Amino acid sequence: MIITVSREFGSGGREVGKRLADELSMNYIDREIITTIANENNMHEDVVEETLSKGVIPQIPVHFGRTFYQYQPIPSLSSQLSARQHTLIRELAQKGDCIIVGRAADVVLEDYDPFRIFVYADLSSKLERCRRLGPEEEALSDHELERKMKRVDSERARYYALYGSTPWGDKSNYDLCINTSQYEIKDIIEEIADYIRRWYIVRK
Amino acid sequence: MIITVSREFGSGGREVGKRLADELSMNYIDREIITTIANENNMHEDVVEETLSKGVIPQIPVHFGRTFYQYQPIPSLSSQLSARQHTLIRELAQKGDCIIVGRAADVVLEDYDPFRIFVYADLSSKLERCRRLGPEEEALSDHELERKMKRVDSERARYYALYGSTPWGDKSNYDLCINTSQYEIKDIIEEIADYIRRWYIVRK
Repeated sequence: MIITVSREFGSGGREVGKRLADELSMNYIDREIITTIANENNMHEDVVEETLSKGVIPQIPVHFGRTFYQYQPIPSLSSQLSARQHTLIRELAQKGDCIIVGRAADVVLEDYDPFRIFVYADLSSKLERCRRLGPEEEALSDHELERKMKRVDSERARYYALYGSTPWGDKSNYDLCINTSQYEIKDIIEEIADYIRRWYIVRK
Repeated sequence: MIITVSREFGSGGREVGKRLADELSMNYIDREIITTIANENNMHEDVVEETLSKGVIPQIPVHFGRTFYQYQPIPSLSSQLSARQHTLIRELAQKGDCIIVGRAADVVLEDYDPFRIFVYADLSSKLERCRRLGPEEEALSDHELERKMKRVDSERARYYALYGSTPWGDKSNYDLCINTSQYEIKDIIEEIADYIRRWYIVRK
């Protein structure tokens, strides 16, 4: 039983993942992937996260001749880290039931046939949730926070586009899309968990 | 408690609506709107359905002068029927709890704050469901059936676009988007009903 959670920034997707993991007694996987990659490469975790979220740096020609030119196929740092991230995700999934938030895990783990969730919400709910739960956003105005949301979501979309064949957030990629506007996630997590349990039993 | 169900052709949205109505002991509204309009206008039900699904015929200028022209504001038949459909939907919603399938009811009943579902599925599941449940599709090849699906869905999208501000099927319009691929709706309807019951209790 593997669950992947994709989510819009501020919609509470991480909370959905964590609470589902509690509710279903499953391993919750998120930050530890970054920690492992950071340790392996002797990098700061924030740099790993930043490098991954910016996507693969395009390869550029490194030498031009008069009549020919040559591409040097050195994988960029971000595609190296990305490949490592995929291997780690697959290793963790092999170990047993788990919930993975973000990281295009629904595509990476496609052949495990995971239950794929997308979490989203309307703008005002996302702003309100960020204000309440994200102390780092305190200094931002609503307008700045909205811009940050858009930036993070488009980074996620870009990362996803490197591996998926359909766009990030396109509902056809997911088994259930949950709009978390106007309620507290803790109040409805049991019902989401029941749906997933049932899905695993009844699907053909 | 009002529930609207939008759906892709072949995804089983109507079945979701009917079964939810049973499960939640709510009034199920679908064909009776067409029947009422047909009776009122002395038209065949199929013609009403067809006229509505083709959308509003655009108004065209009926008279040109040398230096000015004039639009004659005669509502087309489809926009007249559509307006009547909206009034009927609102009247039915006022009578009490109900589930309405299709007809842009989520937009028409926006101020009732309904629980808005979108039902979808992957192509092979939709083909399989049509083959199993739709005897009228028996004579069609897979290719023809797929074309019919696309046509019906684009008619729905066009009708929706006349009233909604965001596209039909855009997940932001809905509270829950349910992918019905790979299972029988009857096997999971209780879990969907539980989610909705809970949503009505906990939302702010």
